[in-house]
Amino acid sequence: MVEADVNDWCPDDTIRVLIASDIHLGFMENDATRGEDTFIAFEEVLSLAVQYDVDLILLGGDLFHQSKPSPSCMFKCTEIIRKYCFGDKPVNIELLSDQFQNFARNINYEDPNLNVSYPILSIHGNHDDPVGQGSVSSLDILSITGLVNYFGKWCDYTHVRISPVLMQKGGTRLALYGLSHLKDQRLSRLFHEKKVEMERPDETLDWFNLLALHQNRANRGPSNYIPEDVLPKFLDLVVWGHEHDCEVYPMHGIKTEKESFFVVQPGSTVATSLAAGEARPKHCALLQIHKGDFMLTPLPLKTVRPFIFKTLVLSEENLGDQVNESEKVQEFLKTKIEDAITEAKNNMHDDPKQPKLPLVRLSVFYENESQNFNPVRFGQNFTGLVANPTEVLLMKKEKKTRERRERVPGEEADMTGVAAEAPDVESLIRSYYEAQPEDKRLSVLSVRIVTEAVRDFTIKHNDEVLRRAFDAHKRRCIAALMDSNAETEQEIIEQLKICKNELDTADDDKLRTLVDLTARPTAPPAQLIVPVMKLQTQQIGKKTVVVLSSDEEAEELASRGRGKGARGKAAPRGGRSRAKGRQRDFTPPAPSPPERRSTPRRVAAQKSVSWLQNVVNTRKLRNSSDIEDSD
Amino acid sequence: MVEADVNDWCPDDTIRVLIASDIHLGFMENDATRGEDTFIAFEEVLSLAVQYDVDLILLGGDLFHQSKPSPSCMFKCTEIIRKYCFGDKPVNIELLSDQFQNFARNINYEDPNLNVSYPILSIHGNHDDPVGQGSVSSLDILSITGLVNYFGKWCDYTHVRISPVLMQKGGTRLALYGLSHLKDQRLSRLFHEKKVEMERPDETLDWFNLLALHQNRANRGPSNYIPEDVLPKFLDLVVWGHEHDCEVYPMHGIKTEKESFFVVQPGSTVATSLAAGEARPKHCALLQIHKGDFMLTPLPLKTVRPFIFKTLVLSEENLGDQVNESEKVQEFLKTKIEDAITEAKNNMHDDPKQPKLPLVRLSVFYENESQNFNPVRFGQNFTGLVANPTEVLLMKKEKKTRERRERVPGEEADMTGVAAEAPDVESLIRSYYEAQPEDKRLSVLSVRIVTEAVRDFTIKHNDEVLRRAFDAHKRRCIAALMDSNAETEQEIIEQLKICKNELDTADDDKLRTLVDLTARPTAPPAQLIVPVMKLQTQQIGKKTVVVLSSDEEAEELASRGRGKGARGKAAPRGGRSRAKGRQRDFTPPAPSPPERRSTPRRVAAQKSVSWLQNVVNTRKLRNSSDIEDSD
Repeated sequence: MVEADVNDWCPDDTIRVLIASDIHLGFMENDATRGEDTFIAFEEVLSLAVQYDVDLILLGGDLFHQSKPSPSCMFKCTEIIRKYCFGDKPVNIELLSDQFQNFARNINYEDPNLNVSYPILSIHGNHDDPVGQGSVSSLDILSITGLVNYFGKWCDYTHVRISPVLMQKGGTRLALYGLSHLKDQRLSRLFHEKKVEMERPDETLDWFNLLALHQNRANRGPSNYIPEDVLPKFLDLVVWGHEHDCEVYPMHGIKTEKESFFVVQPGSTVATSLAAGEARPKHCALLQIHKGDFMLTPLPLKTVRPFIFKTLVLSEENLGDQVNESEKVQEFLKTKIEDAITEAKNNMHDDPKQPKLPLVRLSVFYENESQNFNPVRFGQNFTGLVANPTEVLLMKKEKKTRERRERVPGEEADMTGVAAEAPDVESLIRSYYEAQPEDKRLSVLSVRIVTEAVRDFTIKHNDEVLRRAFDAHKRRCIAALMDSNAETEQEIIEQLKICKNELDTADDDKLRTLVDLTARPTAPPAQLIVPVMKLQTQQIGKKTVVVLSSDEEAEELASRGRGKGARGKAAPRGGRSRAKGRQRDFTPPAPSPPERRSTPRRVAAQKSVSWLQNVVNTRKLRNSSDIEDSD
Repeated sequence: MVEADVNDWCPDDTIRVLIASDIHLGFMENDATRGEDTFIAFEEVLSLAVQYDVDLILLGGDLFHQSKPSPSCMFKCTEIIRKYCFGDKPVNIELLSDQFQNFARNINYEDPNLNVSYPILSIHGNHDDPVGQGSVSSLDILSITGLVNYFGKWCDYTHVRISPVLMQKGGTRLALYGLSHLKDQRLSRLFHEKKVEMERPDETLDWFNLLALHQNRANRGPSNYIPEDVLPKFLDLVVWGHEHDCEVYPMHGIKTEKESFFVVQPGSTVATSLAAGEARPKHCALLQIHKGDFMLTPLPLKTVRPFIFKTLVLSEENLGDQVNESEKVQEFLKTKIEDAITEAKNNMHDDPKQPKLPLVRLSVFYENESQNFNPVRFGQNFTGLVANPTEVLLMKKEKKTRERRERVPGEEADMTGVAAEAPDVESLIRSYYEAQPEDKRLSVLSVRIVTEAVRDFTIKHNDEVLRRAFDAHKRRCIAALMDSNAETEQEIIEQLKICKNELDTADDDKLRTLVDLTARPTAPPAQLIVPVMKLQTQQIGKKTVVVLSSDEEAEELASRGRGKGARGKAAPRGGRSRAKGRQRDFTPPAPSPPERRSTPRRVAAQKSVSWLQNVVNTRKLRNSSDIEDSD
């Protein structure tokens, strides 16, 4: 019945779209075994586009694994796109909307200087979103090069307004809405506040309304996902990127019978985490649209590395008596892994490009420590047999896990547990600080800003994220202090606490007005490292002001405080001029004659806000970037 | 006379080339004032190509300032090239050589999928040379995209063989030789050993022989530059990149009258250091080739930020008496800077795109400390008046400088002096280690490998450079130890010394056979940081082997050494398996029963080669990347 329908469709009226998502080019690119996986899969996706002779290719974000892909990654990506998507085959889709509004330039196949046969349209994901100066994403580069048509770029968190790409082929009209990744909690709130608009084209005509977005679909905490029911009902189909589990099934939608929209979740084309969902067979999909109706056909990918995931609960297995238990468990798990390898072999596609070594992951729950052992060393038995020998086992203590599940929320204290259970880096860091004793918590920096910055850093591997956050935060603190009446050290500390509290509790919009993360960091580009700065208090007349000084200057100030006045004698004018220099950021500038300085103030200066310490503490957290991240 | 000649040339027989070099796109791109300078100049270069209607554009390397340009930099570069170099104008140059040999692909204007009007041909420089996995340079990316024709890429240091790009326009035949940057000392040696070949095309025909290279031209130490007389005499013209001083003069060469080749040194299009040579007016050049003759016309760049450089010797100025000397000097220098600003204004071109704020640098020699002051603070007087307020002064002590010049070479001890005078980062680091007392010198790492790695790191800002170097070094040490008969700790230390000495004294070729820097580092890509590893000795039977262990394992080993044997009791087999795991890199694997361990060996293990410390020490040197680098 369904087949018959499609066969009746006139090809000149049928828009054919190849859909794929989360290709993560460059993921593990330096790994000797797995380095090419993402490129092989991408090549297969594009070759399927050619094979099924589509009109366009639609990608759901995260084409790149990192926002700053390596030169080698950029090179391979370009090579593959040029190999498959350029040529003489005409593109039979007519653009009806304003191309400059959609893509900031012409769609590539209408560029008179390029010869494009299979146009790619893509939104960005959370891995390849705009970074750094000018907010440029890798897709912007592919766009200006004419390799990809980048649409749905949106960076404004006060509201969202999506102008669809309007396309026509014969009697079929497609309104393609794109929304690149925005932070889930904030987008979720914008939906809640009805601040997300989707422009409708001429409604006297029939349009097939397709939305591509890249957000959490699974519930990952309150407001930390986009519930389907907030999306407008006029949509016919949603292509949902970001979730790596492939949920592509044959679908056939008839607009006249429509109650709500359909959702297709292409999933990733590579397993970026060794989670159960990633072990599902990977697909892309062929979407055919004919007037109001559509037909979705899953296309299995045959060059994706096989991945077998198993969960084992040792207490449920009969392992015999308790002597040499660790050894017995290891023997048992070895046979399980061998079984998994065999299973992987049997599932292999007959494609010579498919990598041979499988990924195998056993998630093992053990009961007592005598069953435990070093899983990395154990994995070395499988070097040359699996692609991930060091990660083949994930050992979790069963009782502990159960206990934790049964415990009242909030009772948590063991950070290992928190780390294992934290849904994301933000929650982990938040829990970390909450678990600290009062005197070890952050006293000036807002935990919220730190967590957001670290989250962005773990995804982007870009120092500037942290520099911007600290810089913005510093500006905010200084502004708050300048506005306040704080004069004594205690008052300053209090004021900073208020400021921190304000940041930690502000709602999103308020936060953005307080801390401008988009501003260019003040540090010059040569300084790759967050500049070592200290906030110091200094008495000017009756007013204590806070001055920023470099470590060196602080040291100098401190040493003078310790009674070494000789410098002042040798160059008193130099000394004054130096003080003046430090005040340059503040108005009104007031003279600070050296003779007014007295010991208590200097001590206060030394003891005052240990900005440096916070920066250093925070920077230690950079290492949290190796926390496994599920998207 | 010269003019008359050119006017007689038939345009259909004249190849017109726009020549530029060292554009350094992205230099200071995050600086609020100077961020756009490199892009403005590049745009002017390409607009001159269009204005003078050239057949091709030849770049002498360092198109990019960094080997991994930022996304924003890549975007702007692409945008500018697409704006000027794509279009319908036909290119009238015929390619006679094998394009795949020259460019690894078709020249872009013959690519059927691209519409190129002004083809760019470029070699790479030392700033944009290939990096990382697959040795990909930014020019490779521009090449695969079809934006630039990247030629003369060469990475083999055992010999050099250059195949020219052979081009013809009417009766004029051009053989264009390209040699991308190689390390000067090594290339110099290859020339000396007659291992540099340039293939000659059919010699029965007349060819105009042009070489583009990117090397030190000025003598920067023995063998650390390429003397002109090592270049073959059949060349007609050499385009010499890398040197930033612009040396472009009108030239007219007639092949029949030729004695040697001409050299044109385009210089950079942006001042990347505040040195005197960079203050010369910047140019690119129009080269016209007609059969055997050529005509070179300098084209002044009108959008380069004005730069005034002055040297002042205070002892030669009449500054009056000695009271308040620092203040007087400052007043004096202020007037000098104001003069320079005026001079810059008078030199401005009438181009609206030219940045207004000038660069000003006074190099000041002072006689005594009372004349000295903080130049950064002083510079703040010129914020908003010059583009480089924090760097407007360079203060050097006259006497000290003179003394140093007069001192016998080798007597040097003051590191500040060394830093100021070191011609490059390598010499600086070498001097640093030489100045250390014996016990603080590197005991395992070869100073040579460290210096080379740091030099590459300062240019490339790429962690992998260091990882590769340390990894290769580690492999070499382990191999040397495995080959040796060293058994006791002392013998091992001696062996490592021999190994280090061998590396430090080996000639280049030998070094490459000992240490393979091209191998993929073993560390997985997620580890951005050099893994913290310790070399430890361990007794197996009568033989002491060196094992690699992580910090954690070393700690564990050490704690067992301190008498905690309880673990062994709980899981003796686990213990053995652990030891076995550590030995896995070595053949033949031998069992290491726990009961054989005794205290002295454990102490030896703890005391043994402090690889970690060396790594850490070396990593501190990363900060030397802010040492000013002249190219």
